[in-house]
Amino acid sequence: MKSRAPGIRLYIDADLSSDGAIKLADGHAHYLRNVMRVESGDEILVFNGRDGEWRAVIAAIGKASVRLQIEVQTREQTPGPDLWLAFAPVKRGPIELIAGKACELGVSALIPVITARTNVGRINRTRLQTIATEAAEQCGRLDVPEVKAPVDLPEFIADWPAERTLVVCDETGGGMPIAEALAGANPAAPWAVLVGPEGGFVKSELEAITKLHIIKRVGLGPRILRAETAAIAALACWQALVGERRP
Amino acid sequence: MKSRAPGIRLYIDADLSSDGAIKLADGHAHYLRNVMRVESGDEILVFNGRDGEWRAVIAAIGKASVRLQIEVQTREQTPGPDLWLAFAPVKRGPIELIAGKACELGVSALIPVITARTNVGRINRTRLQTIATEAAEQCGRLDVPEVKAPVDLPEFIADWPAERTLVVCDETGGGMPIAEALAGANPAAPWAVLVGPEGGFVKSELEAITKLHIIKRVGLGPRILRAETAAIAALACWQALVGERRP
Repeated sequence: MKSRAPGIRLYIDADLSSDGAIKLADGHAHYLRNVMRVESGDEILVFNGRDGEWRAVIAAIGKASVRLQIEVQTREQTPGPDLWLAFAPVKRGPIELIAGKACELGVSALIPVITARTNVGRINRTRLQTIATEAAEQCGRLDVPEVKAPVDLPEFIADWPAERTLVVCDETGGGMPIAEALAGANPAAPWAVLVGPEGGFVKSELEAITKLHIIKRVGLGPRILRAETAAIAALACWQALVGERRP
Repeated sequence: MKSRAPGIRLYIDADLSSDGAIKLADGHAHYLRNVMRVESGDEILVFNGRDGEWRAVIAAIGKASVRLQIEVQTREQTPGPDLWLAFAPVKRGPIELIAGKACELGVSALIPVITARTNVGRINRTRLQTIATEAAEQCGRLDVPEVKAPVDLPEFIADWPAERTLVVCDETGGGMPIAEALAGANPAAPWAVLVGPEGGFVKSELEAITKLHIIKRVGLGPRILRAETAAIAALACWQALVGERRP
């Protein structure tokens, strides 16, 4: 077996099972043929978020499609952390950074939340989903986090699932140090991290958020972090302190 | 007093003391005059890494220079964490991300370390220093981390100060979960975080690093993080678990 394409790992829609054959078209076929220049017989890895990860062989390369032969399961599907990231949209560079890094750091869903001080226009949800998908392919995840439709903060609060703990990054200094707030927390429970816009939440927003059932207001140190830095830092701390702490 | 320029915070070289006057030229004068469009009488904040933070008033704006009148100290100089980030250089986007985010996350020095699998060319050290300085201005730090000259890994190891604890991000899975490795660690001691290149350290490098006196090999979870993500995540965890843990 050749190993010319050892690094390729592709998220696809199709069901995966042994001895299955899959035809890829459009973006995937273009990527494999023209970007990665795979050849017949090359091996890649594929996953779909349901059936684990499989080794597949390039069986045929056509002008507009690539045929894969699914060979053997390399990893079983296991659930990742049940961790949402809710974040006030920021400018294009930082919001794309959030989408990629949040995926690498294991979030299960990304929720853009429009707050009083949010001052960016339309969110390119398709682009953010593509970035999250590529990050999932590269970081070895078995699923892809969903980029949800933007919601206004009042709606986000009204619809909040009571059993989900919300970690609110509070740049006003009113929060507890994150290591203290998350000490001994339950990794099996549902979680979410909420990060405000540049300039923070307005007072009435923070009060409304604080009325939610299970909430932890956390601080991330004495420096003023950019929104995207706060999101990445809070997620990294959550994984270290809760999600991927040694049992 | 007008407050047209409330957000401006400038790192300058000059000594700062009450009733001092400072003439800014070149980049700083251009930035204040043409980018921030300050006017005579506007207030800004200045710091130099030695004398704390001071409020200053724009006293005069000339064609090529701006004169500041230093008014009153707003914060005393206090030391930040003694935390270095040593990192294998990566491509331009990610390395610039590291410079800015590491500064926001409180590192005192940035050290590019050339490893066997480092495959980027020249490092634009001036550019990285500028990014770190701007991040310091924006995040409210009282100092600016120094971007050191690149060193080869063997030299880095040979010159290692024995009393400094090195946290090595080990993507091979041989590390301890970072929360466990850093539990109860001493925030007053000197620290450093080391992050390898995409593809990781080669085996002999990791063996050489492991021979250093005080070393903690840590893991950052089951996903394969990009080098810049690992750097940011490790620094955020260090601050939460060691540097900015409630005493």
